[in-house]
Amino acid sequence: MQDCVKVAVDAMGGDNAPEEIVKGAVDAVNTRKDIQVILVGQQDAVEAELKKYSYPTEQITVVHAEEVIETAEPPVMAIRKKKQSSIVVGMNMVKQKEADAFVSAGSSGAILVGGQVIVGRIKGVERPPLAPLIPTEKGVSLLIDCGANVDARPSHLVQFAKMGSIYMEHVMNIKNPKVAIVNIGAEEEKGNALVKETFPKLKECKDINFVGSIEAREIPHGEADVIVCEAFTGNVILKLYEGVGSTFLSMVKKGLMSSLRSKIGALLIKPALKETMKSFDATAYGGAPLLGLNGLVVKTHGSSKAAEVKHSIIQCVTFKEQDINGKIKKNIIDSADGEE
Amino acid sequence: MQDCVKVAVDAMGGDNAPEEIVKGAVDAVNTRKDIQVILVGQQDAVEAELKKYSYPTEQITVVHAEEVIETAEPPVMAIRKKKQSSIVVGMNMVKQKEADAFVSAGSSGAILVGGQVIVGRIKGVERPPLAPLIPTEKGVSLLIDCGANVDARPSHLVQFAKMGSIYMEHVMNIKNPKVAIVNIGAEEEKGNALVKETFPKLKECKDINFVGSIEAREIPHGEADVIVCEAFTGNVILKLYEGVGSTFLSMVKKGLMSSLRSKIGALLIKPALKETMKSFDATAYGGAPLLGLNGLVVKTHGSSKAAEVKHSIIQCVTFKEQDINGKIKKNIIDSADGEE
Repeated sequence: MQDCVKVAVDAMGGDNAPEEIVKGAVDAVNTRKDIQVILVGQQDAVEAELKKYSYPTEQITVVHAEEVIETAEPPVMAIRKKKQSSIVVGMNMVKQKEADAFVSAGSSGAILVGGQVIVGRIKGVERPPLAPLIPTEKGVSLLIDCGANVDARPSHLVQFAKMGSIYMEHVMNIKNPKVAIVNIGAEEEKGNALVKETFPKLKECKDINFVGSIEAREIPHGEADVIVCEAFTGNVILKLYEGVGSTFLSMVKKGLMSSLRSKIGALLIKPALKETMKSFDATAYGGAPLLGLNGLVVKTHGSSKAAEVKHSIIQCVTFKEQDINGKIKKNIIDSADGEE
Repeated sequence: MQDCVKVAVDAMGGDNAPEEIVKGAVDAVNTRKDIQVILVGQQDAVEAELKKYSYPTEQITVVHAEEVIETAEPPVMAIRKKKQSSIVVGMNMVKQKEADAFVSAGSSGAILVGGQVIVGRIKGVERPPLAPLIPTEKGVSLLIDCGANVDARPSHLVQFAKMGSIYMEHVMNIKNPKVAIVNIGAEEEKGNALVKETFPKLKECKDINFVGSIEAREIPHGEADVIVCEAFTGNVILKLYEGVGSTFLSMVKKGLMSSLRSKIGALLIKPALKETMKSFDATAYGGAPLLGLNGLVVKTHGSSKAAEVKHSIIQCVTFKEQDINGKIKKNIIDSADGEE
């Protein structure tokens, strides 16, 4: 098991834990020989789930964690008090280098706080951004930052752009990824104070392919691979994306049920529509990495099913193989040198 | 023509001017006897269009304006230099009380600048917000502010909430409209500095029905009637709404053309789908008012066709009949008194 990537997985996090989480872990090790999954959670519950499946048993171990952090709990307090929670235990394994990565569908707030407080930032990284992939007409784009770091400074956004570029180039395999900043117009002089100050700094960066501003309308067309914004805007974009998509779909479905004629039509288009919807579903690409930490932390949707958990686990392998953190470290050090 | 509402319309603004603008004006006066439209623009071109239609000629007049402000022009400069443009001439008519309202599909920037500089703010209004209606599952919500006033202060957002409430209650006829602030979580302690500071101020307002935070995901469900945010966020929401919707629709269409089976199905569902799309189309409700000015200025989509122009013109009647500006004035004065 020497060259295995060790992924600690929060067996208690999300709406479908532990069932779907355990199933996702089993699917991951049944797909790949080079993964060692450590399921962190209430031992009895986790083992009861594991018993349902056949898999190479040497690839999954269980580490007991008595407590569970609920989504509604204030994150800072939860991380501080619940030392025996699956999130704190899993993150400590990353900190102690007992695991390369930690995957959780649990409380976003607790994961963001825990990432900073327990795993810790790479030296020089000012803020660790949460960077989900969002579906576009052309594939996916990285939306960076969607975390809890609101009211960011220009220097944070510049680091987001660099870390995002490294991720898209080496994990998603997009050569020379296009980086754009979310703005309310295409021109350089448009924007709020933060964007106006950040724009020229991004233009100066020689190690990214900065293509300028992107208006929100263009995001779904996939015009940029790395979409830089501060976390409040990123959160609005991410959630509106989900909200408009699902509302639209439910309205189309309702419309299709409105007459006998359309019901028959609906039966005929079902396979094609399903295929279309699949291509507009980012969950197939795994979870959102929290970048810039001394180890990898991946946040998957709270509603994650086994497939997304599996993809999130497999994503950790590429992250480690490509030495993303090594590349981020080097980039941050080089950037700091350049400023002197 | 005593009790007519006089609406100046920018005959040269937008992608489909003057054809669709003139047609929209004709449709408006053919629908309502109580509207007097003043088409502002290049006389020959406008009159050539008018000749195509039959309508009560006493309800439409043409005022010549030689110049046109292009969308790409820097707005402040354009408003200052092009005194004979349709936007400047039309807005001056509102200022001089020769018109009750001005409707334009032209340059957003120029309309926002002209509204403030030429028409002028109601005394006490700190910033005039641009407030489009966005479609939801339940009808429409007012998204306030989507203008150019980025980096707003809490006191601006409080005024937006009040003006938006008055508009939704008296123009859109929604009793006791629910007001929410765009946030990245439902709890009061969530948000960026602006939202955290604004939230308690909105809670204190006795003249609005403040229901708390709204996450972007909930916006399409129509959970709030008035959605308060600063303009950068509002612009991102508005444009992403359009972008995700149109991308989604084009992907569904592409999917439907992928096989013979789905093509047949597409023919069957077409009427039902069209009906659904219509209910998710805000243009039927007219344009976006620029609130808080000494007169009404309405911005319609640059891509407006006759139907949207017509609705935008008719919308001005309700605005005047309900004395929205009188109500805003009173509210602002009462609020200022309350603070003393």
